[in-house]
Amino acid sequence: MIVWALLTSVGINLGLCLLFFTLYSILKKQPSNLEVYAPRLVAAEEESEQRNGFNFERLLPTAGWVKRAWQPSEDEFMSATSFDAVVFIRIFIFSLRVFGFAGIVGVVILLPINYLGSQLDADSSDLANKSLDSFSISNVNDGSKWLWVHFCAAYIFSGVVCYLLYYEYSYISSKRISHYYSSKPQRNQFTILVRGIPVSSGSSCSETVEKFFTEYYPSTYLSHSVVRRTNKLQRLTSDAKKLYRRLAHLKSETNPQRRSIRDGFCGLFGHKVNALDHYGKKLETVEDNVRMEQLSVAGKEVPAAFVSFKSRLGAAIALHIQQGTNPTEWVTERAPEPQDVHWPFFSSSFIKRWISKLLVVVAYAAVTILFLIPVVIVQGLTNLEQLETYFPFLESILNLTVVSEVITGYLPSLILQMFMAFVPPIMIMLSSMEGCISFSQIEKSACTKMLCFTIWNIFLANALSGTVLYRFDIFLDPKEIPGILADAVPAQASFFIAYVVTSGWTSLLSSVLFRLKPLICSIIKRPFSGKDSDELEVPSIPYHSHIPKVLFFGLLGITYFFLAPLILPFLLVYCCLGYIIYRNQLLNVYAPKYETGGRFWPTVHNSTIFSVVLMHIIAIGIFGLKNLSLAASLIVPLPILTLLFNEYCRKRFLPIFEDYPVECLIKKDREDQNDPTIAVFYNKLSTGYEDPALMPIRHPRSTDDHNSPLLQAGV
Amino acid sequence: MIVWALLTSVGINLGLCLLFFTLYSILKKQPSNLEVYAPRLVAAEEESEQRNGFNFERLLPTAGWVKRAWQPSEDEFMSATSFDAVVFIRIFIFSLRVFGFAGIVGVVILLPINYLGSQLDADSSDLANKSLDSFSISNVNDGSKWLWVHFCAAYIFSGVVCYLLYYEYSYISSKRISHYYSSKPQRNQFTILVRGIPVSSGSSCSETVEKFFTEYYPSTYLSHSVVRRTNKLQRLTSDAKKLYRRLAHLKSETNPQRRSIRDGFCGLFGHKVNALDHYGKKLETVEDNVRMEQLSVAGKEVPAAFVSFKSRLGAAIALHIQQGTNPTEWVTERAPEPQDVHWPFFSSSFIKRWISKLLVVVAYAAVTILFLIPVVIVQGLTNLEQLETYFPFLESILNLTVVSEVITGYLPSLILQMFMAFVPPIMIMLSSMEGCISFSQIEKSACTKMLCFTIWNIFLANALSGTVLYRFDIFLDPKEIPGILADAVPAQASFFIAYVVTSGWTSLLSSVLFRLKPLICSIIKRPFSGKDSDELEVPSIPYHSHIPKVLFFGLLGITYFFLAPLILPFLLVYCCLGYIIYRNQLLNVYAPKYETGGRFWPTVHNSTIFSVVLMHIIAIGIFGLKNLSLAASLIVPLPILTLLFNEYCRKRFLPIFEDYPVECLIKKDREDQNDPTIAVFYNKLSTGYEDPALMPIRHPRSTDDHNSPLLQAGV
Repeated sequence: MIVWALLTSVGINLGLCLLFFTLYSILKKQPSNLEVYAPRLVAAEEESEQRNGFNFERLLPTAGWVKRAWQPSEDEFMSATSFDAVVFIRIFIFSLRVFGFAGIVGVVILLPINYLGSQLDADSSDLANKSLDSFSISNVNDGSKWLWVHFCAAYIFSGVVCYLLYYEYSYISSKRISHYYSSKPQRNQFTILVRGIPVSSGSSCSETVEKFFTEYYPSTYLSHSVVRRTNKLQRLTSDAKKLYRRLAHLKSETNPQRRSIRDGFCGLFGHKVNALDHYGKKLETVEDNVRMEQLSVAGKEVPAAFVSFKSRLGAAIALHIQQGTNPTEWVTERAPEPQDVHWPFFSSSFIKRWISKLLVVVAYAAVTILFLIPVVIVQGLTNLEQLETYFPFLESILNLTVVSEVITGYLPSLILQMFMAFVPPIMIMLSSMEGCISFSQIEKSACTKMLCFTIWNIFLANALSGTVLYRFDIFLDPKEIPGILADAVPAQASFFIAYVVTSGWTSLLSSVLFRLKPLICSIIKRPFSGKDSDELEVPSIPYHSHIPKVLFFGLLGITYFFLAPLILPFLLVYCCLGYIIYRNQLLNVYAPKYETGGRFWPTVHNSTIFSVVLMHIIAIGIFGLKNLSLAASLIVPLPILTLLFNEYCRKRFLPIFEDYPVECLIKKDREDQNDPTIAVFYNKLSTGYEDPALMPIRHPRSTDDHNSPLLQAGV
Repeated sequence: MIVWALLTSVGINLGLCLLFFTLYSILKKQPSNLEVYAPRLVAAEEESEQRNGFNFERLLPTAGWVKRAWQPSEDEFMSATSFDAVVFIRIFIFSLRVFGFAGIVGVVILLPINYLGSQLDADSSDLANKSLDSFSISNVNDGSKWLWVHFCAAYIFSGVVCYLLYYEYSYISSKRISHYYSSKPQRNQFTILVRGIPVSSGSSCSETVEKFFTEYYPSTYLSHSVVRRTNKLQRLTSDAKKLYRRLAHLKSETNPQRRSIRDGFCGLFGHKVNALDHYGKKLETVEDNVRMEQLSVAGKEVPAAFVSFKSRLGAAIALHIQQGTNPTEWVTERAPEPQDVHWPFFSSSFIKRWISKLLVVVAYAAVTILFLIPVVIVQGLTNLEQLETYFPFLESILNLTVVSEVITGYLPSLILQMFMAFVPPIMIMLSSMEGCISFSQIEKSACTKMLCFTIWNIFLANALSGTVLYRFDIFLDPKEIPGILADAVPAQASFFIAYVVTSGWTSLLSSVLFRLKPLICSIIKRPFSGKDSDELEVPSIPYHSHIPKVLFFGLLGITYFFLAPLILPFLLVYCCLGYIIYRNQLLNVYAPKYETGGRFWPTVHNSTIFSVVLMHIIAIGIFGLKNLSLAASLIVPLPILTLLFNEYCRKRFLPIFEDYPVECLIKKDREDQNDPTIAVFYNKLSTGYEDPALMPIRHPRSTDDHNSPLLQAGV
């Protein structure tokens, strides 16, 4: 890529940004889009009075929302959203600081040094026609003394990143503790999940649990609810829900023709009958089945139970100390919030769960490693000659320069992106098969999986051009790795710069800002879509697909810091955009379905450490290739020091993200003792962990019951 | 090595065994040796009436002691010794089973197959002159179908070893639990060690601890004792002890000449003075210093304390749940038994301990890796030419065949053994610097260190002949490892067979059975040795040097199972001897100083798994070298399955060895509530963890005070 091309691309994308911002500020003001762009506010019914009435201002773009997104202080933001949202936004603040420092050092010091080198053939003195590679470290002459500047920059930058990581970890952990102190009693704080209950033949699971906990926790044990196998029931309730929707839709239908259907084979033959009667009868049958299944399911106990205690300390004791003499029985784990429980997957025995975990690891490895194969094959089909062979009539079109450039330049990456779109659901599926029992756990696990997947399949596959990557034997030959990386990674600098400018900026704006899918849905208002057209959905932010994306750009910035500092200003723009946009969708769109207490921050920390160490490994390779073996050896202590720093942070901060200490637990417990509402809370607690599928079904004709527990079971 | 040489060696060593057994059964009957061979019985004063009187039977060898060692059942053995001793003996039982099975398969099936091969040059048809290599897998023809028998044997043997491991792990864990149920209340069960106490400037450490635990554990907290910096005090008390000994000896001295010494420079000039007066005065000064230091030491608080609770559950709660919001403060760990505490090393802050741990890891790696260098250099000095150059007068002696054979054959291995003798103390030193606060922890950690050291420096260094081992880059090239091992390991089979027969049998008999060092000491009865001649020492078995030795032979047996099955019968003999000998000296000699509850069994388990996987890796290499690549690939699942089995065992059994579950804790606590002696126990508990150096010193002239706490401080 040459400078001129980059500038053009940046210009186009800046223009696009401006256009998107304008469009967004108009679109969001349309009352019909309010449910797409501010469902939180709609849900809170704050702006409902504004929904009617037309004024001209609605068609003018304004920048007020940008100001509103910047304005609230962190505490205000936290009270308006959730602690998780604050931690998520801290990723951007952290990245802004890192790239701010890196950008100054990179652009002011390293970039001129790289540019003044003459290693690459510097024929063209015309700046605009220079290759971007002239700005990368590849252009510095082999063995040049200037490389020592890069060497120092690597040391200083690593120090700064570590300092910022430490600061951020300590800031977030203190926030986490103070957020806990200010929180109201929550049911999951008092509850644990017990699995592997050893049910003897004579008694039920419920009796066993009751006996065990009344014996060993006489003063703190409150209640329990045994988990039941409700897969069939969940299927039935979801059927009932669909039928009910169809009925509700038919009732609102005015065309009598549409209110009748044919019975018989495939609905093609047979008599026309009244559809209302038909579905009504069907619904009644299903409802009867649901009730029967609810009765029979009482016997289908899974040897697992949610056990609630009267105090947080009681729950913590049962959680942290092994219960029975057999460590695979009475296995305790933290209970998720009731609405966070993922009911369908409660595999019974310890060994089954263990095996399913192993299988998921194997499946994940297979998906990650083999992902590129279909992608490359499909991409291969899109080369021009093959297209012309398969579709001869396209020949004239394909011969146009513009079309051929689009096809060869964008189609392969479009196909990659399309394939990538299938990945988050696969990761969510794998994580839920792993035995995670809550959506938050699934999301956290899927987030980590997705991150590794992205690094492997986007960064490494592009940097190592696929072929080297799949020569697995390089992993059996670790000393070759720095050399291979140092050879391949700088060469891909211009590709990744383009990637940040186009894919980074544009996808952030279009997908996150516009919420294209719900927007289109709301325009089409499909009656038989999964949801009712007038059913308001306040989405929860899908951290598992957003965090890996953001962290991947962090990885690019850190890895390319001294290789090709040109990437840094573009990443800074990305972070600024991200900061504004996410603060805005978090304030208006997303509502937290559950709260992890910022438990995904360690993932952010670890992935940053990974990026820094990757930078060091590449640095070792680069200095080796550039005939500066002294610098290459002197870099070696840097990754070791970084890993030691990481180890220290693990000891110093990680336990805070795993659990709350006795000090906090007891202070909160004592607060409760003086709380007059605690008795009410205990009542709520003892029924909190009933499977929603077991709740009595609501009257099917009342239309205000969409937020009934039935919905939660189907998520 | 040829068969004839092996048979000769076996013959000589069997003869030696018989001789040693005879000598031992005579020696142990001499009343003067009773303190060496049965100090436990002497301590129990059971046989004191037998000490005088002479009969002729004393000079006749008898085998009664062998019978007595076999006889007691496991429960009797446990009540006579300790649970740790039982677990130690289980290692031999386990090994007997493994080598019993392996021996039958190896000798009956594999050995004939190996022998009938013709890969090695089979010129000599005379059995006695055949090389031992004809019995190893090297003799099987390349690509021979018979190798599939070895392949099957590897699978079956791995299965049997895993089954036996599982059985043994489950047996020992159930024994551990039942041993806990039957144990009396012990002080360490009620106590934890708290480190990193955040002392504020206004208050003392003791006040901080008192305040924290009375606030958060009001119902279970009992007492605490703060650790103090007593290094100087310990030096002083040890000085006082030495002076006191000298005085006691002088008093018993009858020669008046010896009761006077010269004062002045180095004792060479100056007047003769009465030694009694001289040392008496010195002792008084030191004792005054001790008292002054005891007073001043009260202020030298280390921010660490032993905190005792009224119940085991109370201690377990404080142990398992993080205490303060800062995870590096109020760090809790299991308290050792009071007599097990290693007082000198109480490094204060979290970060200091962390750094010292890191430094120890580095030092250990350096010692392990660099150990062979001085050994090889010294061994190099002992070759004949160099000896003749340095010591020309030895020339005539060195030219004798016998002498030269001894020097070239035995001297290098003797030097290696001498160097090896320095290693256990070094490992103990490293482990104590690591921040371990009890002898049992130190011993466990030193045991693991010693094991890795032995495998690296004896097995790998011999198998890979040193040179390959120190080409570190093979570790950067993991795929080469199976080939290198498969090439080198079988070639060393005859060396290791000889090693088992000579070093294994003989060292077991001479060092463990004879207790040579104490025997010689008791004969010389040195007056100024560290201990009084008539002071009875009941030693504690040094597991850290015995377990690695035994496990190393286990490694040899498993690794060579299908490579050279000839080794197995000799290992069986070793196990039998070990079983008899250790049961005997555990019954008579060693008394436990502390009890770990068999916590070293996981080390045994892990090292066996390591051996099995090593065998698999070598098998992959062997089948590759023998042109049977299909078998090589089909072996690959075996190590994976073995590691999965290990992972399962970790989940199923390891937690039992880490801590006792709530079920056990509460049952024992309830037993205590009905125990009338518990109040007395609580009293004992609250003073149990005082540093013995802080106790008032006993009257120096009373000679019966040798077992005073002063002694413990000096260990």
